[in-house]
Amino acid sequence: MSSARNFAVALRRARVPKPRFIGRPIVSQIPAVAATRAFTNTSTLRATKEVKYTSDAYPNLKRNPGFAGITAEDVKFFKELLGSPSAVIDGVTADAADDIEPFNGDWMRKYRGHTKLVLKPQSKEEVSEILKYCNGRKLAVVPQGGNTGLVGGSVPVFDEIVINMSRMNKIRSFDDASGVLVVDAGVILEVADQYLAERNHLFPLDLGAKGSCHVGGNVATNAGGLRLLRYGSLHGTVLGVEAVLPDGTIMDGLSTLRKNNTGYDLKQLFIGSEGTLGIITGISIICPPRPKAVNVAYFGLESYDQVRQAFKEAKGHLSEILSAFELMDGRSQKLVRQSTGNKYPLEGEHPFYCLVETSGSNAEHDMEKLEGFLEHIMSEGIVADGVLAQDETQFQGIWGWREGITEALSHLGGTYKYDVSIPLPELYQLVDDCRERLTKLGFVGDDDSFPVRAVVGYGHMGDSNLHLNIAVRQYNKDVEKAIEPWVYEWIQKRNGSISAEHGLGVAKKEFIGYSQNDTNLTLMKQLKALYDPNGIMNPYKYI
Amino acid sequence: MSSARNFAVALRRARVPKPRFIGRPIVSQIPAVAATRAFTNTSTLRATKEVKYTSDAYPNLKRNPGFAGITAEDVKFFKELLGSPSAVIDGVTADAADDIEPFNGDWMRKYRGHTKLVLKPQSKEEVSEILKYCNGRKLAVVPQGGNTGLVGGSVPVFDEIVINMSRMNKIRSFDDASGVLVVDAGVILEVADQYLAERNHLFPLDLGAKGSCHVGGNVATNAGGLRLLRYGSLHGTVLGVEAVLPDGTIMDGLSTLRKNNTGYDLKQLFIGSEGTLGIITGISIICPPRPKAVNVAYFGLESYDQVRQAFKEAKGHLSEILSAFELMDGRSQKLVRQSTGNKYPLEGEHPFYCLVETSGSNAEHDMEKLEGFLEHIMSEGIVADGVLAQDETQFQGIWGWREGITEALSHLGGTYKYDVSIPLPELYQLVDDCRERLTKLGFVGDDDSFPVRAVVGYGHMGDSNLHLNIAVRQYNKDVEKAIEPWVYEWIQKRNGSISAEHGLGVAKKEFIGYSQNDTNLTLMKQLKALYDPNGIMNPYKYI
Repeated sequence: MSSARNFAVALRRARVPKPRFIGRPIVSQIPAVAATRAFTNTSTLRATKEVKYTSDAYPNLKRNPGFAGITAEDVKFFKELLGSPSAVIDGVTADAADDIEPFNGDWMRKYRGHTKLVLKPQSKEEVSEILKYCNGRKLAVVPQGGNTGLVGGSVPVFDEIVINMSRMNKIRSFDDASGVLVVDAGVILEVADQYLAERNHLFPLDLGAKGSCHVGGNVATNAGGLRLLRYGSLHGTVLGVEAVLPDGTIMDGLSTLRKNNTGYDLKQLFIGSEGTLGIITGISIICPPRPKAVNVAYFGLESYDQVRQAFKEAKGHLSEILSAFELMDGRSQKLVRQSTGNKYPLEGEHPFYCLVETSGSNAEHDMEKLEGFLEHIMSEGIVADGVLAQDETQFQGIWGWREGITEALSHLGGTYKYDVSIPLPELYQLVDDCRERLTKLGFVGDDDSFPVRAVVGYGHMGDSNLHLNIAVRQYNKDVEKAIEPWVYEWIQKRNGSISAEHGLGVAKKEFIGYSQNDTNLTLMKQLKALYDPNGIMNPYKYI
Repeated sequence: MSSARNFAVALRRARVPKPRFIGRPIVSQIPAVAATRAFTNTSTLRATKEVKYTSDAYPNLKRNPGFAGITAEDVKFFKELLGSPSAVIDGVTADAADDIEPFNGDWMRKYRGHTKLVLKPQSKEEVSEILKYCNGRKLAVVPQGGNTGLVGGSVPVFDEIVINMSRMNKIRSFDDASGVLVVDAGVILEVADQYLAERNHLFPLDLGAKGSCHVGGNVATNAGGLRLLRYGSLHGTVLGVEAVLPDGTIMDGLSTLRKNNTGYDLKQLFIGSEGTLGIITGISIICPPRPKAVNVAYFGLESYDQVRQAFKEAKGHLSEILSAFELMDGRSQKLVRQSTGNKYPLEGEHPFYCLVETSGSNAEHDMEKLEGFLEHIMSEGIVADGVLAQDETQFQGIWGWREGITEALSHLGGTYKYDVSIPLPELYQLVDDCRERLTKLGFVGDDDSFPVRAVVGYGHMGDSNLHLNIAVRQYNKDVEKAIEPWVYEWIQKRNGSISAEHGLGVAKKEFIGYSQNDTNLTLMKQLKALYDPNGIMNPYKYI
C-alpha cells in the first residue's frame, strides 16, 4: 500500500498537477474477496465434527413429533426419482456420515444438524416431486443454497432432509438490451456476475460470500451486501421468482418485464422468506450496465461524528456515483492487520476508518467529483488522513481491509455476530455501549483468561447497517447472556431492526418480537399456515 | 421553442465554443405538468352527468347480493364516528346527488358508480372503525385517493361506500440524514415533492397526475411514472406501509429502516393491491437527494429501429445520470400541436420523437456527457434533428410535448387506453399492427363518419412500457370489439404485460389471464380470501 497516493500529502502540495486516474474496466477491479469465504465442504467437514449440535445448544427446540422419520422406502423413492447416484447422499440405509456432515454444519461452526439424507435435484420438476412427496409423508425439509448464512438458516436442526440446490446451476438467458438475467437458483453469485461482466453488465448485489453463495439463497434471504446503497434492494431488482410450494405446485413467476401490474406481486413474499414458504428454483433480475470506472478511497477519522459528516459530504459530492460507503472501526482494522500481516494503508492509527467507492461511466468526471469530495473533507478537517487506490492491486488491497474482517474474526475462536439497523446518529453507540458493558462485567481482556477478545463494529454506513461483532476465545453462555437480550432491547428502544440483512434463521427466531409487533407476527403466521399447512418447510426457524 | 438551441445546427458549426449549460436547482425545473391533469371535482361533476353507468357498460357485472344495503342507521353510526359534517356526504337520508357525483365518476368520464355515501376519515383509527363496522355489516367499500386512475379502480360500480382519503393529508416526518419521509396516504404527490424540494430531496416517483394523485393511491396501484428508469419501483423505495385490514386490524408497518430482514415483507402485498386487501393509511419512503442539474433534450428520428439505437446509446453515454427516456410517435405530437397550438420544437416532421432527461450532481459533467451522447447519435445518423433546453421555459416546453399527450387526447372525444409492457424489439410494432387492423376494418379516418380519429403510441421506452391510445370520436362497441381481446392476445404472444403500470381495476379484470397463469391466479385468490373473507374491499375489480 506504500505506493498508494496519500491525498493528505497531495493536498499540501496544492498546485502540483494531480495525477489522473485512468478508468479501468470494473471486471478486473472487483477484488477477489470471495476467497475470504470461499471455503470448501471439506474444510467445513473437518470443523463440524467438533461443533455442538444445535439441538443441544438450543435445548428449548424439540423435534416436532408430527414429522415422520425417514424410512428406507422414502430413500428408495428419492433414488428412483432423481436417478443419478450423486443426487442422493444416503445416510439412512448406508453409512455416509462423512459425506453428510458438510451439509449438517455451517461455515461459522455454530450450527450442526442431524440429517441423514441430502437430495440434490436438478430441475424444478424434481423439486416439485420431492416436496409433494415430503408434504404427503410429513417429512420436514431444509432448502440449502451455498450455505454461507450467518443465522443457521440453511442447516437442519434435527433430521430434516436437506434439499441442496447446487445442481440447479444453469444460466437460462440474458437480454443485453434490457439487462434482464434469468438463472437457476443454484448459480453461484460470482459465476453470475462474471457471466454478466463478459456482457458489460453487473449483478446488482455483491457480498463477501460471493464465491460460494447461490443467487437463490440471496433472494430467499433478501441479501443486502455492499452496493445496496447504489442499486437498491432485491425487492426492487428481482423481476421474477420461480418457486415450488410445499404441495408441489410450481409457481412460474419468471417475468422479464420491468413493469407488470397485474395482481398481487407474489414473488415479493418469497424474497426474504428463508425457505419457509417454498423453494426458489429460479430468478429473473434486472442488471445495470457495468460501470466503466470504479474508484476507492480509504481514510481515517478521529470520531464517529466525523464519520457522519464524511458520509453526508459523500452523498452531496458523489451523489449518483457513490456505490459504497463502509465504516470500519480501529479495532476491526487491527484484527485484519494481525490476521493478514499487511501494513496499514495509512500511517498512524485512527479510531475510525471509512471506505468510499464510486462507480460511474466517465473516469475523469468521477475522479473530479471524488477529488472535490476528498479536498473538501480534508480542508474542513473532517478526516485525518486518506489514500486513493491508484491501480487494481491497491483497489483490491483497500477492499481487503473491509472484506477481511470476517475472515480475521474467524481465526480468533468464535464470534457473536449482530447485524442490525439503527438510525445513523446512534449507529456506532451500540458498539461502545456493548464494549463498556462487557468490560464492566469483567469479560474483556488481552490474555486468554478473558472470554472476550474484542468488541468491534463495522458495516454498511450508507444503509444504517451495523455489524456488531464480539470475538470470543470460545463460545460462552455467560457472555451470551450478558449480550442477549440486552442488545435487542437497546435496538428496540431506537426502533432499529435486530436483523438488517442476515435474516432470522435459528439465531434470531426467538427475538423477532423486538422488531415486529404482535399484529405483524400474527399476519406472518397466517401466511406461513396458508402456504405450508404441515409446517414442513425449514422448521424450528424464522418466525 | 424557437430560441432552443438546435444541436444539429450547432454541430455543423463544429468549432464554435459550445454554450455552457448552467445547472439550476431542479425545484424550479420540474414542469407544471400537473396542470394537464389537475382537474377539479367540479369539472368532473359536469362531466359525469353524461357518463354511462359502469353497471350498464359492463352488464356482466352484477351486484353481489351478499352485500347489505346502506341504511339510515348505518349513516347515523358513521356521522357519530366521524363527527365533522364535512366527513360524511350523505345521499342516503338526504338529497346530495350533486355533492356525491364527483366521487362516483372518474376523470376520463369512462366509469360511473351509484354510491350514496362518501366517508372522509381523518385518522387510521377512524379508518379502522369504519372498516370493522362495514365488515361486520357486509357493506362493500371503495378506497379512493386522488381518483386519477385509468382503469376505474377508485370509483364504485354499484352502491359501495366511498372511503375518500383526502383528509388524511399530513406529512408526518422527514429525516434529512437518511432521506426517509413518512406521510399520510392522502398527501398529494406534488405536495410531498414540494416539501422535499425545500429540503433538497426528491420524491422517487413522478407522473402526470402529480397535482391530484395521492401517495397512498400511488402505492396502492404501484404507480410507475416518468423516472422509474432512474429511481426504481415502489417495491424498492417504499420502506413501510401502514394499512387497515377489512376487520379493522391496523397493520403498523411504517419502518424507516432501509434494511429489516425480520420476517415476511408484508408491506409488499399492499403495493399494487389496488385497495382489495385493505386501506393504506400511511407510507414511509426513501427519497434521494434532489439532483443539482437537470437537462432535457428532444429529437426526431426516422424509424423505430433508430429509436432503439438511440436508447442503447443513451444508456451507454448517460448511464447513471439518465433519468428519463420517453418515446412519442409523430401522430401523438401532431395531436399536442393541434391541442395547444404550439409550434413544433423541431423544423419538419418526423415519425418518432424521443425525450431524454438527465439528472445529476454536477451540471458541467452532465452537459459534457449529454453533448457527447448527442454528438454521437447525430454523427452516426441515428437522429435527424434535435434541441436541448436552454432554460426553464424550454425545459417545461419540451416536457409539455410528452406530458401534453393525455390532455390533447382528452379533447378528442374518448380514448381507448392500453398500458402495456412488451420486450423492446417489438414495442412499437403493436401500434402499427393495431392501426393497420382498425384501418382495414374501415374504422379510421379524418372525417367525422369514422369512429377512430387516431391510433397513437408513446410511453416509457426506458421501461419497455408503451401506451397505446386509440382516440375515438365517441366510445364505440364495434371498435372496442375489434381491439379486444386482439390486443391482449398480441401481448400474450410476446410474454408482455397487459397492464404495465395502470393496474387492473374494472377495465382489465377480465383479461388478467393474458398475463398471469392459473396457478398464480389461484394463489392470488387465496391471499384475497385470507385478508378479505367477506370480499367487501373494492369488489368487482382486480383479480
